[in-house]
Amino acid sequence: MNCELLAVGTELLLGEIANTDGQMIAQGLNEHGINVYWQTVVGDNPARLRQALEIARDRADIIITTGGLGPTADDLTKETVAAVFGKKLYTDPRQLARLKERMGPRMTPNNLKQADLPEGCTVLENDWGTAPGCAFEADGVHVIMLPGPPRECKPMFLYRAVPYLEKLQGGVIGSRYVKIFGVGESSMETLVRPLMEKQTQVTMAPYAKEGECELRITARAESREAALALCDPVVEQVREILGDNIYGVDVASLEERVVRGLRQQGMTLALAESCTGGLLAKRITDVPGASEVFGFGCVTYSNEAKQALVGVSPETLERYTAVSPETALEMARGARQRGGADIGLSTTGYAGPGGGTEEHPVGTVFIGLSWAGGERVICPERRYMRSREQIRRSASSTALDLLRREVLKL
Amino acid sequence: MNCELLAVGTELLLGEIANTDGQMIAQGLNEHGINVYWQTVVGDNPARLRQALEIARDRADIIITTGGLGPTADDLTKETVAAVFGKKLYTDPRQLARLKERMGPRMTPNNLKQADLPEGCTVLENDWGTAPGCAFEADGVHVIMLPGPPRECKPMFLYRAVPYLEKLQGGVIGSRYVKIFGVGESSMETLVRPLMEKQTQVTMAPYAKEGECELRITARAESREAALALCDPVVEQVREILGDNIYGVDVASLEERVVRGLRQQGMTLALAESCTGGLLAKRITDVPGASEVFGFGCVTYSNEAKQALVGVSPETLERYTAVSPETALEMARGARQRGGADIGLSTTGYAGPGGGTEEHPVGTVFIGLSWAGGERVICPERRYMRSREQIRRSASSTALDLLRREVLKL
Repeated sequence: MNCELLAVGTELLLGEIANTDGQMIAQGLNEHGINVYWQTVVGDNPARLRQALEIARDRADIIITTGGLGPTADDLTKETVAAVFGKKLYTDPRQLARLKERMGPRMTPNNLKQADLPEGCTVLENDWGTAPGCAFEADGVHVIMLPGPPRECKPMFLYRAVPYLEKLQGGVIGSRYVKIFGVGESSMETLVRPLMEKQTQVTMAPYAKEGECELRITARAESREAALALCDPVVEQVREILGDNIYGVDVASLEERVVRGLRQQGMTLALAESCTGGLLAKRITDVPGASEVFGFGCVTYSNEAKQALVGVSPETLERYTAVSPETALEMARGARQRGGADIGLSTTGYAGPGGGTEEHPVGTVFIGLSWAGGERVICPERRYMRSREQIRRSASSTALDLLRREVLKL
Repeated sequence: MNCELLAVGTELLLGEIANTDGQMIAQGLNEHGINVYWQTVVGDNPARLRQALEIARDRADIIITTGGLGPTADDLTKETVAAVFGKKLYTDPRQLARLKERMGPRMTPNNLKQADLPEGCTVLENDWGTAPGCAFEADGVHVIMLPGPPRECKPMFLYRAVPYLEKLQGGVIGSRYVKIFGVGESSMETLVRPLMEKQTQVTMAPYAKEGECELRITARAESREAALALCDPVVEQVREILGDNIYGVDVASLEERVVRGLRQQGMTLALAESCTGGLLAKRITDVPGASEVFGFGCVTYSNEAKQALVGVSPETLERYTAVSPETALEMARGARQRGGADIGLSTTGYAGPGGGTEEHPVGTVFIGLSWAGGERVICPERRYMRSREQIRRSASSTALDLLRREVLKL
């Protein structure tokens, strides 16, 4: 089966927002083995929307529209789709009641039209907003309409459109997401390629994102559990290949893995950041509940702060400079001691665009780690053509990964 | 004139990346008064790319393709476009020489094809990557081909495609970007609407992004300077309407404005963050050269750290709790004193999803400010349905804005 995505909204054509719904749905369909050959974006213009639908009807088995289900005069997706596929709209009493309940006194006559749906459709109830979606088959094509705002579109796709598609396909899918740090995308692909080619029941899809890699392992079966049971032996084989470069399976991020690991092991963390300037603390505290394991962080951007907040000695700064393994270690030690934490972690380096020395050019970063089991300092390999943002992001990821491997042993 | 954007790349159809090139180009074309009625995404598939080009040729005056100019066998945009428009490809000697110089010993036979271009085209030299772009007119349509990677696509659009389009249009445009914080998008639109409707020579376009607003003011004239001279009186009229809600014109961000203001006024900043957990320091240090004005930051997530790092008194924490105006003020004072800085800025609050009290539910944030001119503490209005990320982002923006208004008077 192949699907065409049709995004409706003038704000997309004006470049006010990116079509992130398109990306999210394309990823989900790919996971379900449904090919996306075309994505089209049109404005809130009934003639062009009609033309786009007629083209899509001729070349796709499934059409998923996003946007244009709202209450304003611009929102014409349902009316136009119904006209193209020869369907009448009716007012759905259950949706009308839900709408009235949800809107209360804010209800206006305009809102009423959100309860209008094509005759004979499957209603996709919207628990995340006011506009219901719907799905129907006509002219040999399945049409699914979803609301445009991403915070509604995502759950509507996952919990409404996907079950509809699974019914069409027979069977459901289950996926495991293997999260990887410390090996590049192309090396990772080369390493797992033989395993990928051997698979008959599962599919494996590699992704790269912000210096990390992900390997998605997917199977189809009668139930989610049975599908996951097909994936799990493959996850184990991937573990044998990639070893401790895998930081987790089905975890959201490196920072979530670290925070969860610290909680499980009852350990606390203190930070002293120079070049990452708060990014490491920000990533840790992005995780809800971080306060259980993290209480003390210092952004010691100046030499004075390095001395005052985490007790780096003036001699070390004088003799080795602020960007040195010696300073990184003293920062980690100082954070640990002064923060009364089990672990101290630090970063110091040149993020650019200015700064740097001949010996230590822009991109050089030292990461220090201090805990009861010992001390480490590393200097990750410098890569060319990296922006200030990339250098800082990569330094913060490498610091989290060092902590994970050396202390948490995850 | 109307333009169709045609993005080529299987990675877009698989949802591996979002079509951010499309958004960037749509925004730029809108600024130039060129309508975008259609955006299409196809994979690296010559038959479907050909079909998309044939459809676009019939409905657009300008077609801009992105992607598929690379060296691999998948990269077929040039070959397919040339075939559809009846153009032959030739090997451009200048581009071949540039390519050889750029690639050096890494040059492979595959790379050679990047120097092949449609006969009679305008070459768009690529100073940001290896694949040149090009533009030509055929069948009454202008076709512009740009590379796909965003870090190449953006400058290629701005510095290569835009001058080509300006030649077609006659005249160039100039824009001013008025950056606004402290007034919502719909209020801002309501306030400037009468002024927008009065304009004959300039266009005004409002945007909303991450809790901020932007108003773009654009004019067309014979030179950039003349166009900007048409914009500037309108900027002044907007200033009269929005007053100090405008934090800058043609500045990148609130944090850049603040760092630049601190530099100009020779002042230094120290931070004590609780609920923002390093995000405020991260945003300040995102700005190159931040080290001149910022050296000392504390992430005092725990009560112990609030006492140890910035000297909040145990009595205050006991009597008023950590989330209180009193604690926020002591944090700001302590950061200023201990950091030896001119200004101390602090945040403390409940970012959720857990935590909060009946009196101070999730979303409550106190922001403290201390400087030679006085002290302030504010509690921004809490809005419902906000995520942890939004609460933290908004708190950090409000803190930067408070500093800008109260101390820097910008």
